[in-house]
Amino acid sequence: MRMVDLIEKKRDGKELTKEEIRFIIEGYTNETIPDYQVSALLMAIYFQGMTEKERVELTMAMVDSGDKIDLSAIEGIKVDKHSTGGVGDTTTLVLAPLVASVGVPVAKMSGRGLGHTGGTIDKLESIQGFHVEIDNDQFIELVNRNKVAVVGQSGNLTPADKKLYSLRDVTATVNSIPLIASSIMSKKIAAGADAIVLDVKTGAGAFMKDLEDAKKLAKAMVDIGKSIGRKTIAVISDMSQPLGFAIGNALEVEEAIETLKGKGPEDLQELCLTLGSHMVYLAQKAQSLEQARNMLEEAIFSGKAIEKFKTFIAAQGGDASVADDVTKLPKARYIYELKAREEGWIGTIVADKVGKAAMLLGAGRATKESKIDLAVGLVLRKKVGDKVNKGEALVEIHSNFENIDEIKELLYNCFTISPKETTAPPLIYDKIL
Amino acid sequence: MRMVDLIEKKRDGKELTKEEIRFIIEGYTNETIPDYQVSALLMAIYFQGMTEKERVELTMAMVDSGDKIDLSAIEGIKVDKHSTGGVGDTTTLVLAPLVASVGVPVAKMSGRGLGHTGGTIDKLESIQGFHVEIDNDQFIELVNRNKVAVVGQSGNLTPADKKLYSLRDVTATVNSIPLIASSIMSKKIAAGADAIVLDVKTGAGAFMKDLEDAKKLAKAMVDIGKSIGRKTIAVISDMSQPLGFAIGNALEVEEAIETLKGKGPEDLQELCLTLGSHMVYLAQKAQSLEQARNMLEEAIFSGKAIEKFKTFIAAQGGDASVADDVTKLPKARYIYELKAREEGWIGTIVADKVGKAAMLLGAGRATKESKIDLAVGLVLRKKVGDKVNKGEALVEIHSNFENIDEIKELLYNCFTISPKETTAPPLIYDKIL
Repeated sequence: MRMVDLIEKKRDGKELTKEEIRFIIEGYTNETIPDYQVSALLMAIYFQGMTEKERVELTMAMVDSGDKIDLSAIEGIKVDKHSTGGVGDTTTLVLAPLVASVGVPVAKMSGRGLGHTGGTIDKLESIQGFHVEIDNDQFIELVNRNKVAVVGQSGNLTPADKKLYSLRDVTATVNSIPLIASSIMSKKIAAGADAIVLDVKTGAGAFMKDLEDAKKLAKAMVDIGKSIGRKTIAVISDMSQPLGFAIGNALEVEEAIETLKGKGPEDLQELCLTLGSHMVYLAQKAQSLEQARNMLEEAIFSGKAIEKFKTFIAAQGGDASVADDVTKLPKARYIYELKAREEGWIGTIVADKVGKAAMLLGAGRATKESKIDLAVGLVLRKKVGDKVNKGEALVEIHSNFENIDEIKELLYNCFTISPKETTAPPLIYDKIL
Repeated sequence: MRMVDLIEKKRDGKELTKEEIRFIIEGYTNETIPDYQVSALLMAIYFQGMTEKERVELTMAMVDSGDKIDLSAIEGIKVDKHSTGGVGDTTTLVLAPLVASVGVPVAKMSGRGLGHTGGTIDKLESIQGFHVEIDNDQFIELVNRNKVAVVGQSGNLTPADKKLYSLRDVTATVNSIPLIASSIMSKKIAAGADAIVLDVKTGAGAFMKDLEDAKKLAKAMVDIGKSIGRKTIAVISDMSQPLGFAIGNALEVEEAIETLKGKGPEDLQELCLTLGSHMVYLAQKAQSLEQARNMLEEAIFSGKAIEKFKTFIAAQGGDASVADDVTKLPKARYIYELKAREEGWIGTIVADKVGKAAMLLGAGRATKESKIDLAVGLVLRKKVGDKVNKGEALVEIHSNFENIDEIKELLYNCFTISPKETTAPPLIYDKIL
């Protein structure tokens, strides 16, 4: 088999076989196939796409390129949730204790943030003492005992995906639905998920700006999951404006705590209930989605959810009392308000620009080496569809810098204020089952 | 400027600017841009094409990547001829002395053959003593004195094109019209041509199998030539069957000698007169194509053409007496005949397969390191449209191997014999001015 012939085959729109895909992925992982041939293939895939069969084979070849996490020692059906990434996305912080509180095992392997999207581990580390450096035995023991634990990424999972992703990043081939779908699914499968709930974001703050593309990506991932016997569903949710109010690590923890108590932002709570009920249903802890949702609402209003959060935090060394007193979280030195320059209705809040402003405050990493400031960030006071008067606050800016004129200007550019009434975008656009 | 942004731009079908193309070619030549980014760009070009402006800029960037030959010391307009390559293409051997005999300076830089297409230098070296190792001063002096000299490729001409071609070869991006056109034109321009006559072959033995593709390639090259002020014309000629009768180095020299005496194969003579009259006309040695053709016909029938051949050969150390006695050329040990197994009319002679058979005899190089046998090759006895009787010879096989059963079978597969009358394909399909 010669790589150049396989590039030509894909270039000409033909389907690669399982053996051919394995040859490529194995050869690339063990460096017998050079970057320059793989990047030409990736661009050919960008233009010609991949069939469903090819996507499945690519996913499994990447899974088999490295270690696989064995979660069989954990009782029950392990359901993982994955979000394609957005701004102010606090769902994992809420969902992990929430679904654990109704008996669904959550064995979460999570990452740190890069760019304007935050990482779950960074957020949790704003709680004093919390750490993810636990070994595999401890991790499994914690999940069996408490139904929830979060661990950092370890082992040599999907090295082929890591190599491919780095190459795609510098060859303008990131934005290919079959490549994105196979990349995400290979990581979830290698991490040991029995079932997968996907939150595919769409809008300005999302990777998929366009709803139709988001649907295609969702369908591609669900099809891969089904083909390899992992129940997978996808929810397509809005990321044209940030989710919830808070953007920033400690600020999002505070918001998650409020949400677990039933006092969080409406959109965040609704998305958590939607994603969570699918997780509970796939974990076979409920007979129907409706029953699952009722269980989760009951967990929030009875206090079971916030109790589970405390147990989870304490088990990993964290100060669980933050759940009762959020002032124990890191606080920024200054809180400024961005005041509306005119009156009207909020038309748009461009999510990715808001995320960039939060990153400039220090809440996110510009490069892998950047150190982040857990205290800083933004709290939206208005969301799309809200009425605002001149001089009223649009956003609270939690900053450790005194001079934030530039960031303020950037934030003004995120908002459009309309003289006519506006309406909030839908939160959930579609579900792909 | 970041290479990844330029890949994305081309991927999305946008036009690259002069500065961007220069950035890419300079960066690739001096190795600040890696192969893997360039191969992704090449694949994007394969799918998105290049505008005429981009093709010109790419051509000139490649010309400027290395040395340029200065032919200004040669009197008159230097017209170069380039063929896109075929089987049994003896035109350069005929054209160089032919047009020189009517006063057109021919300063030919030529290469060796690879695969089933022969190289002019290999062919000429089948004449005892002939050599191309002459320095630049000698080369210019010879052209000024005799109007014709052939030199091997020297200097660091179009290094960017060489690097790109090697990369295209292993990334399935050879077959892209803008890339082929820029590659050919950059080499001709760097080699100092004032005007260029292109022979674009089409059919089974050619790079462009399809007539429409051949026309597109011809137009792309003519447009580049015009844009940069080099008069360029293209003739699209048939390569569905081999040109002339002879395929093989010494055999083609013999055929060229016959053609210069007016006794060569009709198709070869006609193509030489067509290409040659364009060369004479572009060199401003004739007022019209018709006048140019008359001059060339007169040169052949008066003996001026073959005399020029002798002068040219002798000037580069060769034994010019071969022109009077072709038995002085290297001869193969065995001459076999491939006898028709049935009677009928020749329907096709698949040129690339015939070329492959000649290569297997030793007439061509399978790899750059292969040594070739100058004596061996094939002489067609029948061409498409000819009547053949059972047992009559289709081809003479000049071989230094005794057992050629396999080659014979291969050759039988090149021919189709029809029970109904067939017609020869046109020799010239089109001209692009």
